[in-house]
Amino acid sequence: MRMTRLHAPTLKEVPKDAEVVSHRLLVRGGYIRKVAAGIYDYLPLAQRVLRKIKNIICEEMDRAGAQEVFLPAVQPAELWEESGRWGLYGPELLRMQDRRSGHFCLGPTHEEVIVDLVRRDVRSWRALPLNLYQIQTKFRDEIRPRAGLMRGREFIMKDAYSFDLDDDGANESYDAMFAAYERIFSRCGLEFRPVEADTGAIGGSRSHEFQVLADSGEDAIVSCASCQFAANVEQAELNRLEVKSVAAEGGPVERVDTPEKRTIAEVSGFLQREPSEFIKTLIVDADGALYAVLLRGDHELNEIKLRKVLGAQHVHMATDAQVVAATGAPVGFAGPVGLTGVEGIVADFAVEHLRNAVTGANEQDAHLVNVAVGRDFTPSQFADVRMAKEGDACPRCGSELRAFRGIEVGHVFFLGTKYTEAMGCNYLAPDGREQPMVMGCYGIGVTRIMAAAIEQNHDDAGIVWPVALAPYHVTILPLQMNKPEVVEAADTLYQTLLDAGVEVVVDDRNERAGSKFKDAELMGIPVRIAIGARGLAEGKVEVKPRSGGEMEMVALTDVPARVAELLG
Amino acid sequence: MRMTRLHAPTLKEVPKDAEVVSHRLLVRGGYIRKVAAGIYDYLPLAQRVLRKIKNIICEEMDRAGAQEVFLPAVQPAELWEESGRWGLYGPELLRMQDRRSGHFCLGPTHEEVIVDLVRRDVRSWRALPLNLYQIQTKFRDEIRPRAGLMRGREFIMKDAYSFDLDDDGANESYDAMFAAYERIFSRCGLEFRPVEADTGAIGGSRSHEFQVLADSGEDAIVSCASCQFAANVEQAELNRLEVKSVAAEGGPVERVDTPEKRTIAEVSGFLQREPSEFIKTLIVDADGALYAVLLRGDHELNEIKLRKVLGAQHVHMATDAQVVAATGAPVGFAGPVGLTGVEGIVADFAVEHLRNAVTGANEQDAHLVNVAVGRDFTPSQFADVRMAKEGDACPRCGSELRAFRGIEVGHVFFLGTKYTEAMGCNYLAPDGREQPMVMGCYGIGVTRIMAAAIEQNHDDAGIVWPVALAPYHVTILPLQMNKPEVVEAADTLYQTLLDAGVEVVVDDRNERAGSKFKDAELMGIPVRIAIGARGLAEGKVEVKPRSGGEMEMVALTDVPARVAELLG
Repeated sequence: MRMTRLHAPTLKEVPKDAEVVSHRLLVRGGYIRKVAAGIYDYLPLAQRVLRKIKNIICEEMDRAGAQEVFLPAVQPAELWEESGRWGLYGPELLRMQDRRSGHFCLGPTHEEVIVDLVRRDVRSWRALPLNLYQIQTKFRDEIRPRAGLMRGREFIMKDAYSFDLDDDGANESYDAMFAAYERIFSRCGLEFRPVEADTGAIGGSRSHEFQVLADSGEDAIVSCASCQFAANVEQAELNRLEVKSVAAEGGPVERVDTPEKRTIAEVSGFLQREPSEFIKTLIVDADGALYAVLLRGDHELNEIKLRKVLGAQHVHMATDAQVVAATGAPVGFAGPVGLTGVEGIVADFAVEHLRNAVTGANEQDAHLVNVAVGRDFTPSQFADVRMAKEGDACPRCGSELRAFRGIEVGHVFFLGTKYTEAMGCNYLAPDGREQPMVMGCYGIGVTRIMAAAIEQNHDDAGIVWPVALAPYHVTILPLQMNKPEVVEAADTLYQTLLDAGVEVVVDDRNERAGSKFKDAELMGIPVRIAIGARGLAEGKVEVKPRSGGEMEMVALTDVPARVAELLG
Repeated sequence: MRMTRLHAPTLKEVPKDAEVVSHRLLVRGGYIRKVAAGIYDYLPLAQRVLRKIKNIICEEMDRAGAQEVFLPAVQPAELWEESGRWGLYGPELLRMQDRRSGHFCLGPTHEEVIVDLVRRDVRSWRALPLNLYQIQTKFRDEIRPRAGLMRGREFIMKDAYSFDLDDDGANESYDAMFAAYERIFSRCGLEFRPVEADTGAIGGSRSHEFQVLADSGEDAIVSCASCQFAANVEQAELNRLEVKSVAAEGGPVERVDTPEKRTIAEVSGFLQREPSEFIKTLIVDADGALYAVLLRGDHELNEIKLRKVLGAQHVHMATDAQVVAATGAPVGFAGPVGLTGVEGIVADFAVEHLRNAVTGANEQDAHLVNVAVGRDFTPSQFADVRMAKEGDACPRCGSELRAFRGIEVGHVFFLGTKYTEAMGCNYLAPDGREQPMVMGCYGIGVTRIMAAAIEQNHDDAGIVWPVALAPYHVTILPLQMNKPEVVEAADTLYQTLLDAGVEVVVDDRNERAGSKFKDAELMGIPVRIAIGARGLAEGKVEVKPRSGGEMEMVALTDVPARVAELLG
């Protein structure tokens, strides 16, 4: 491809609404343009990257025995009513009416449509297992589309759905998809981690996210340095601490004045005590009943875990008035000692062995010190109700957990029979009985991979594409367009590389050398070949890998071999 | 692929709502399933066919210098307001509101979005010409979705848009796309004709449809046996007849009773005169004014031509009351002789030289015979206002036109500056002046190609795929699954063909031979290899091309070579 013909309009200015680096570089590099909030045009360079991602996905899905289908974007409401999600899904589901006033939605996911397809045609146990996938445009009407392709409204997704005879079969299908996903993200050249995840609103009982590691990631994950354990912090279970020796109890509880000091940070500074010596007391409303939740001062509540521990549908922080009613003091001074205005006290495992701790006094502008758990108060139960963090013990092997930020690019779910039972998707077993099929569902964010690859691979000058995803592999820069020998050498090399099957672009624009270098770095093409009159006089050109290797002078005849080496 | 694993649920019963053969065979062959009116699931076999069509299209578009992009399906109303089409498009445009009450539509076409993209980034004449294309799901809320994929609501389309400096450049782009389309449909293995077409509502001045020839086609086309001329009958211009000698005038006009005989067919039968001897008189309302239109009795009115001749916005048949007011007689008895109740009389060219003709008498239950044009009445003008038909003279060379039915699978338009002027899509010319870009747009119905290929290529037993579109090239049928040597031979041959790069499916189901033959024919796989115990005893298998060649016994070792020959 010649740059004079390639529609890749690079920009010098940084787009105003771009919060993250992938968004900035995709816009500046001429890959995408915004059409409306969360809705983008994909320009030729982006389309080439997307094709590469899709090809890798399709090859690995096919290899894993899945079959490609294509399901409609516009879905009838009737199917969503059968599954029960028409009423549940909320405003993220973009709904509309056709000219006959029929109700439809733009598919954000395809469980209903695929279950409807399979229940109509699959009757016998002989036809299972079955795994169908598609690559398609999805729409989710996000309340706050942001971060470019990271959280758009219209996006491209690969979704697969497996149907099995029983849980064992479904687990095999799950494992096959898990393995395919590992191959897919490896082949994309990404550093990633599969992590245990909450099954969330989609339902089901087993779930992994595939997280591309990047400091800018939305998701906090922990992973063990010693064993295979990795999980979203929301999901990572933490064990009860096995403590060899508990600190000695100090003197009796003592009340201290803490005027206007409410937060852990404020009281910690005021009393000169570490946050880890505090017992933080949160008053929560669980389905209408008030509970106190105790956490170590440096820990954060995990509402998902708390909801499970309490067996509650909804958990939220108590209102100020509820706190005053329960503790007799304004917000900021709650403590477990002598606390009676709640249904129960749930203490996190990490609180169990605390001695000489600081807590609120259930009294305005006062805290207690020298508090000992078990001596001064007794919780109703100890449980794991906090977020995991760096340095916590791995729940599997006890080694230290390390914290990462990640971008979720894939998700595998064991769905069970949630949809097949609701929609009557059954098979006839060999004994003639009707059984609901057991499902799994498996998603990959195709457009999000493109953004995540950039979040993980960039520098100040621009994108640094992994070779597998790069729109072109080599860019040739003739540095002086007014020197015929330079232009001719560039054209000849361009043709030579094309003939060798290299995906190559030649920057034949009448631009200064500086502009060409800048655009090449911005676009992130893996190998740059600069042709200048001086080097050419010696039959040499400059070859430089975008990923940081040294610039080297290479004889023109050796370029194809050197390029092949650099592209691996 | 093994049939036991392939999700291709064939059906014996014919779907009730299937009017056309492609719809019946796609459903029965396990290619598609209906989700809602005009909305379909594409199953694995269909997805394979669609991929082949898409690959051919992409290769030829790339070869022609077009660049692939991907534009959003969900489009903001603002862009359509700029082009003026938000108000004009009518209920075929599926409109919706997002959670912030913003107005959007599902794209039925992408002129607005692409013009918006190009006007933002292309400023200089140096960046032109530019041709961008995409393959994407479109939605048109048809009032009567029908005929399966032939006129669906959600469908896959390739659309391309060219931007040029001037008309000459745009014509070059048009010609390049025209040539690419010829290659695409040829490579798909289809018999087709490019025909001149009306530019219709999309605007513009030059337009060709690519019609796949099939008896079931919606479109009537005529093409010249001698020269390259071909056109939709709506579009085909007809010349004024050059008549060497006009028939002698007969006696004076005579009134004959024709009780209750109104139509040409009725009067023709009653008077024993050919329809071509009749002058059919239609009373039409053109923007509120009444005109009489005269056609030869065996010809049909072309409203598009009449509208142009009259310079009218809207033309429709007059109401019964208007006819009575204009002619003094009920509908069925209008005639040009003595007719004064109309603004004018437009006679088709074919009427010009009629003598001894039959017309209505402007009197109930009466006609006139021996009518001569010019002697008994004089039209206000002669013009081309009828549909072309088989046997008409070619407007280019005068040879006979032949009539075909066709299915429109592609359409190229010279758009001019309609959209670029409305939306301010300009470039700076070398002299510094701003000029609107000159556009073309080019569509191919990807899903419709799949249906059209079947309409053109099928027999009573099922689909007969052109090799280029077939989901698999070869199907191997082990005829006795209870004979280990048959199963083993099938497996070995399957592996041999796979290794040779042949797209092959083996029907390893425990079905009777008859069922396997039926399904193989229904699905339309080009080469069928049946393996039976008897032939196998002699080391031979049955090879038969689906397209009608003879069944032949081929030695197992010769099968790969024979298959390669048959697939061409």
